[in-house]
Amino acid sequence: MQIELNPTGVLNLLSKLEVDLLQQSTTSERYRLFRNCALAVLNVGSHTDSSSEIYDKYEDFDIQLLARERGIKIALNNPPESAFVDGKIITGIHEHIFSVIRDILFICQKYHGENKTPVEITHMVFDMLRNADALEVNKDPNLIVCWGGHSINEVEYKYTKEVGYQLGLRGLNICTGCGPGAMKGPMKGATIGHAKQRVSSNRYLGLTEPSIIAAEPPNPIVNELVILPDIEKRLEAFVRVAHGIIIFPGGAGTAEELLYLLGILLHPDNEKQCLPVILTGPKESAAYFEELSTFVEKTLGKEALSKFEIIVDDPELVAKKLKASMVTVREYRKSQGDAYYFNWTLKIENDFQHPFAPTHENMSALDLHLAQPKQQLAANLRRAFSGIVAGNVKDEGITAIKQHGPYELTGDKSLMADMDKLLGAFVVQGRMKLPGSKYIPCYKIKA
Amino acid sequence: MQIELNPTGVLNLLSKLEVDLLQQSTTSERYRLFRNCALAVLNVGSHTDSSSEIYDKYEDFDIQLLARERGIKIALNNPPESAFVDGKIITGIHEHIFSVIRDILFICQKYHGENKTPVEITHMVFDMLRNADALEVNKDPNLIVCWGGHSINEVEYKYTKEVGYQLGLRGLNICTGCGPGAMKGPMKGATIGHAKQRVSSNRYLGLTEPSIIAAEPPNPIVNELVILPDIEKRLEAFVRVAHGIIIFPGGAGTAEELLYLLGILLHPDNEKQCLPVILTGPKESAAYFEELSTFVEKTLGKEALSKFEIIVDDPELVAKKLKASMVTVREYRKSQGDAYYFNWTLKIENDFQHPFAPTHENMSALDLHLAQPKQQLAANLRRAFSGIVAGNVKDEGITAIKQHGPYELTGDKSLMADMDKLLGAFVVQGRMKLPGSKYIPCYKIKA
Amino acid sequence: MQIELNPTGVLNLLSKLEVDLLQQSTTSERYRLFRNCALAVLNVGSHTDSSSEIYDKYEDFDIQLLARERGIKIALNNPPESAFVDGKIITGIHEHIFSVIRDILFICQKYHGENKTPVEITHMVFDMLRNADALEVNKDPNLIVCWGGHSINEVEYKYTKEVGYQLGLRGLNICTGCGPGAMKGPMKGATIGHAKQRVSSNRYLGLTEPSIIAAEPPNPIVNELVILPDIEKRLEAFVRVAHGIIIFPGGAGTAEELLYLLGILLHPDNEKQCLPVILTGPKESAAYFEELSTFVEKTLGKEALSKFEIIVDDPELVAKKLKASMVTVREYRKSQGDAYYFNWTLKIENDFQHPFAPTHENMSALDLHLAQPKQQLAANLRRAFSGIVAGNVKDEGITAIKQHGPYELTGDKSLMADMDKLLGAFVVQGRMKLPGSKYIPCYKIKA
Amino acid sequence: MQIELNPTGVLNLLSKLEVDLLQQSTTSERYRLFRNCALAVLNVGSHTDSSSEIYDKYEDFDIQLLARERGIKIALNNPPESAFVDGKIITGIHEHIFSVIRDILFICQKYHGENKTPVEITHMVFDMLRNADALEVNKDPNLIVCWGGHSINEVEYKYTKEVGYQLGLRGLNICTGCGPGAMKGPMKGATIGHAKQRVSSNRYLGLTEPSIIAAEPPNPIVNELVILPDIEKRLEAFVRVAHGIIIFPGGAGTAEELLYLLGILLHPDNEKQCLPVILTGPKESAAYFEELSTFVEKTLGKEALSKFEIIVDDPELVAKKLKASMVTVREYRKSQGDAYYFNWTLKIENDFQHPFAPTHENMSALDLHLAQPKQQLAANLRRAFSGIVAGNVKDEGITAIKQHGPYELTGDKSLMADMDKLLGAFVVQGRMKLPGSKYIPCYKIKA
Repeated sequence: MQIELNPTGVLNLLSKLEVDLLQQSTTSERYRLFRNCALAVLNVGSHTDSSSEIYDKYEDFDIQLLARERGIKIALNNPPESAFVDGKIITGIHEHIFSVIRDILFICQKYHGENKTPVEITHMVFDMLRNADALEVNKDPNLIVCWGGHSINEVEYKYTKEVGYQLGLRGLNICTGCGPGAMKGPMKGATIGHAKQRVSSNRYLGLTEPSIIAAEPPNPIVNELVILPDIEKRLEAFVRVAHGIIIFPGGAGTAEELLYLLGILLHPDNEKQCLPVILTGPKESAAYFEELSTFVEKTLGKEALSKFEIIVDDPELVAKKLKASMVTVREYRKSQGDAYYFNWTLKIENDFQHPFAPTHENMSALDLHLAQPKQQLAANLRRAFSGIVAGNVKDEGITAIKQHGPYELTGDKSLMADMDKLLGAFVVQGRMKLPGSKYIPCYKIKA
Repeated sequence: MQIELNPTGVLNLLSKLEVDLLQQSTTSERYRLFRNCALAVLNVGSHTDSSSEIYDKYEDFDIQLLARERGIKIALNNPPESAFVDGKIITGIHEHIFSVIRDILFICQKYHGENKTPVEITHMVFDMLRNADALEVNKDPNLIVCWGGHSINEVEYKYTKEVGYQLGLRGLNICTGCGPGAMKGPMKGATIGHAKQRVSSNRYLGLTEPSIIAAEPPNPIVNELVILPDIEKRLEAFVRVAHGIIIFPGGAGTAEELLYLLGILLHPDNEKQCLPVILTGPKESAAYFEELSTFVEKTLGKEALSKFEIIVDDPELVAKKLKASMVTVREYRKSQGDAYYFNWTLKIENDFQHPFAPTHENMSALDLHLAQPKQQLAANLRRAFSGIVAGNVKDEGITAIKQHGPYELTGDKSLMADMDKLLGAFVVQGRMKLPGSKYIPCYKIKA
Repeated sequence: MQIELNPTGVLNLLSKLEVDLLQQSTTSERYRLFRNCALAVLNVGSHTDSSSEIYDKYEDFDIQLLARERGIKIALNNPPESAFVDGKIITGIHEHIFSVIRDILFICQKYHGENKTPVEITHMVFDMLRNADALEVNKDPNLIVCWGGHSINEVEYKYTKEVGYQLGLRGLNICTGCGPGAMKGPMKGATIGHAKQRVSSNRYLGLTEPSIIAAEPPNPIVNELVILPDIEKRLEAFVRVAHGIIIFPGGAGTAEELLYLLGILLHPDNEKQCLPVILTGPKESAAYFEELSTFVEKTLGKEALSKFEIIVDDPELVAKKLKASMVTVREYRKSQGDAYYFNWTLKIENDFQHPFAPTHENMSALDLHLAQPKQQLAANLRRAFSGIVAGNVKDEGITAIKQHGPYELTGDKSLMADMDKLLGAFVVQGRMKLPGSKYIPCYKIKA
Repeated sequence: MQIELNPTGVLNLLSKLEVDLLQQSTTSERYRLFRNCALAVLNVGSHTDSSSEIYDKYEDFDIQLLARERGIKIALNNPPESAFVDGKIITGIHEHIFSVIRDILFICQKYHGENKTPVEITHMVFDMLRNADALEVNKDPNLIVCWGGHSINEVEYKYTKEVGYQLGLRGLNICTGCGPGAMKGPMKGATIGHAKQRVSSNRYLGLTEPSIIAAEPPNPIVNELVILPDIEKRLEAFVRVAHGIIIFPGGAGTAEELLYLLGILLHPDNEKQCLPVILTGPKESAAYFEELSTFVEKTLGKEALSKFEIIVDDPELVAKKLKASMVTVREYRKSQGDAYYFNWTLKIENDFQHPFAPTHENMSALDLHLAQPKQQLAANLRRAFSGIVAGNVKDEGITAIKQHGPYELTGDKSLMADMDKLLGAFVVQGRMKLPGSKYIPCYKIKA
């Protein structure tokens, strides 16, 4: 089966030069990345979070860019059938495919080299969001970033839907990492809330990255999809577009997100930042949040606890508080002359922007001692959890683990013990991987 | 608690004369009807289908029309809390409230007297739909009417959602009686399908009537609500706006709908009408459709079976067939010079248009013998089931039953036996009333 | 040549009943009226203000309503060629044709009988404007009514364009009687002003009446056309939709308008009304305004002078003042709970609402003595000028004059002298008729 | 007086990096260019075509870019008053100002260096048009480029308006060089035509260049303004966006345009190109076209005459023919797989793309002999006329002439004689400069 698709969005209006460059880029090594992301997007509804499994299943899938005098088209060979209705591709997936081209091929041409300044990195994040039409001028703050696990239990999943519903009823929009679980529930719930309130400008913004997109394919409700090049830029995008953040129960990825956020918010320059953060879940998950906040207190200190609030089992209260704080966020941004659509004034240190490659070497080399500045510790802990996510679900991580065995983490004895306990709890609670397979840890804690 | 609401839609632009007339109408006996419908609409999410229970619970609820120089406002006293978010009424419910005023008070002023000609009755149905902005000019046929029970089991409910989803994926819109069960599932499913296909002109048209609205309150997804004066006009509205009809499992009301439809389609003038009808449900409901079609065959004959198709357990096929038939419907309408938005050429005999009051007297007087023309028999059977619906869930019916005991139905022995069997099956399958109460039949079959 | 046209606006969605009624109405005596108005609208660009001349020229023109299952179409036989471009009717004229059907045939069915109460007459005016979509909810006051002669000189015409330009630059919209001269200039000027300011909601509202439409055909810029049944309802429509009024130089019609307006504004109930009125023209027309205001002072007294302002040769000042007063108008309406789109609180006495038939009998019977209440005198003077307009350009007036000679007006000697002087000036200045023919007065002043 | 303006269009969403770059660019030598273009745009309604006169008059005018956290603002000091209404800048001019920043500062950062390949130059032209939102996807061909003199007589001006009106009546859009005269008339006329036809997507595209913008400031009707860096890119933009071209009477600039166009159309690769070209004017200008076509025949040969058509005194015919040819243009583009919004397949040789600096040296060095390929001769003649335009109205040209006296042109005797005759006619007919000053030729023809 071969299908041809017309371009959408910015790709709808390209010059010959641009078309040529695009075509060339598919002969490069970048092509594999592009092809895999496209496959991930087409493979919606898949029930595995193992990227390699998906890639194996659709070995004969192929995607080509066809140059036409008037622009670019794409041809799909042997795409997953689930992306089609009566032989026609689902519009949402059609758009996602072109988001992949836009973000993997088109935009990336503009950015070469690695050693970028903080200003340049932030510019790139901004440029990619703008290019994706994901920055709304002249709108009051209303975008809630929801973080949480891709593998959560049914009670938690329903809870995330209910929170989304309550946010939607209050006209708030949703941004997530756009995979399953806590990334999908809030969008589904908000859809119903928005429908009841006749909100027509409803946004379901998905921010993802090439190395995780196959394991956590964008759910079909996502109506704006941006594929940032790596987890660091993705995290920066999250915190700069957020007007409020909710953290649902999750595993290593969620811990990574929380540590990233706290590391930034603890920076003295961000002391007055107005960015409400709420950790929430059903009453069954109360213990989870206690563990997490104990870990935070032990590692980052009491001050870190002041940067967020925990609300157990009260979706309406969560939504009410966030809705109310939109006014404060607006006032703060206004007072700083800052944009509503992008938090320019949030200070993000280079430590948090620079990509961390989760090699075995880098992982063992992580400095995990308590005797370092809190932000620095946060940055290193963030990297540790980031590596574990890679080992769990990212293609390069899984491959590395297969070859070299589990990552080894060393550091302060007490810190290592706390980490071990937290990670052990994630494992027991099934937060590391989707159900269906026994989880084999990709890490070893060494004191 | 008192809440004031601004008008929407056509009520947003009234003359003083019209405002005065509206206000006067609330002092009339029509006021109780209006107040009850408004209450029903506000009471979304209620879990009873007993109108009187609802009316009892909100005895102190009150609604007033306030004349202002520039138009009308309404004041709600002690409305159900569930209609509000943080003290603000949900927009969808706000709109529904004004649909009630529009259809119960405003439009009805125009129509007095009872003995209307067929042309006038059809004009009234058209006028009410037009006034509600529910007729779309310049759109190709795409509206699927879904009928089925308000009380169906979980498996059936999921099935209706799946069918709706498949319809939505194909860009088809949904019209139902807008209560729970089979009236809600297709809309919910279509919402997700429409979202995936980026359909922005998604319609969830709800057609209801004052006497059933409290038992089957419009679900919040309904984005166009029309309250026709009685079941006969409501049924006419259904069949004239439909481009295709799906019948899910249901009880007496669903049987009424099927008999009404067949009675009309059997009319010689409608022989060439192009109106696809599909009866469908999950495999667990296969027996239900067998019973129903046996009953149809025995009463209306073999020809009646040719007017519909039964598809068991295949939502995708249902949607595919209807999607495909939209082309035929379009061709047919075009060939007749007929509108797409309203089926003018469908012949509806006076027998089916004239309101039937389900009094004990009228019910016993029904001519239920096989030895009459098929259409006439269909009309009478339709009335019988209509009466049973009233006795089950409509306020006046319940009251009558309380006073005088069950309706008595008489007729041909064999016909009575078939009816008894069908109704008995509805009772056993829990299709007569929402779960939670033991069903006491409101009818007695006398041979 | 026969051309078929599809319906637009409200006529796009009619029931069979309505189509039948429409068709019947064309067999009635109303048909001639309808046919003539349609012809007038098609005959844009004509250079005569003699209705009968036009009717003579296009004797073989014919218009028919064709009933179709899905609505109404119209067929034009031998229409004026100027309405077409390459065989296709100009869209604006197409719309005007359907405005004629809507206002002459469709709406008029609703209103029978003559003896209407003030409330009913105002309701009818409102209903016709609403039906024509000419009432804008949720818009701040911005509609300037411009009155003035259809026959003005080049300097005056340029001046009206310049005033329109200045109004347009300030985002103000224009409403006129939609004929040539002072009715066209402001719209043309405003078009350029609106274009410069990128105003996309630009309105050029034309209010006309059947008996004058042929003499003063709607110019093509008019994007909303309403044909009120008579001059009295047309005048009421003008003053109720106006947020400000400009009076340019003109003849008997303009005098009629000014007297109508003053008669109303002098009513005690309207003392606090906020409705800015500016008389303006180029410096060459300064004498004209002096004469007019002298006449007003002599007949209606000093107080009447306080109801308007005269600005000579300063288009920018005119526009600036009106723009500034929109704020006051808004405040006033708000304080009264009145609508912005229709001035409900303006008191209009029956005397000004009741149609005046300009027969010779009625004209001679007019009470033109100074010894009567000012408003009553204003009402009678208004009628006198109204009759003269009819005698000049309206079909029935011209015919009556042909038959019976000029109207005779009698009254107070001094009043008669003043009137004679004023009318004489109009004649000399060429304000009675378009240039090209010698004006023969249709009236005789008898002291 | 200082005025601050908010950004519009693409400048509404800038990163800090981009804001910084923009600000830096104003300290560079580019600033003078930018400031002058901004002044030209503000100075609409000026009655001189001498750039230097304008620059002298507003010596104290100043424009600054203000960096804000959320983007850029601009501050105007002592701007011409005519750009304001009641202290607020006219929206159209506001947009034009930001077009200047966009095209002079923002876009130009992207393009450094001079020696560009044909592909790169065409890409730049495309990129600038795209960035200005001037390329419409999914629209059928409808854009008519109108060329002609900025200084034409009243009869000719009225004629260009009438042609524009007839084009507008047929739904065609207008693109011109956006100065006065033949660049303004068609837009004014089309405005009325579009209004009559209710065309809401009416486009008045102005393509200009920094060195001529002051002499020919964009008229206010222009609703899309693009400032190309030089006349060569401007001409390329014209011919690539055109679906049809009209040439009205004009002077040296118009001759330049015609020669450019013929030089391209005579290229063998363009033999099958479908691009209708019509030369037209009132009957009083018939002689003008005879002279011009004689000159073309003598220099470029008979074949060149086949590339255009001359229509005298028939605006309706001009519009009819162009309207009809839109179908052919569409077919042609489709058959080539080319875009409708940009003529990619039109071959333009480097000779026509490379900027020609009209120095005295370059002008004398021009090879003006008949014994060279026709396209090359066309290219050189084009340059000659281009230089004369510079000497007439461009700042650098006027300055050069002041210093060094008139340009000297040499070449074949007969060719020189023909040129002399043609230019002489332009002078006599007042086509070189706006009336009000005696024209002193900026060139000398030497055989």
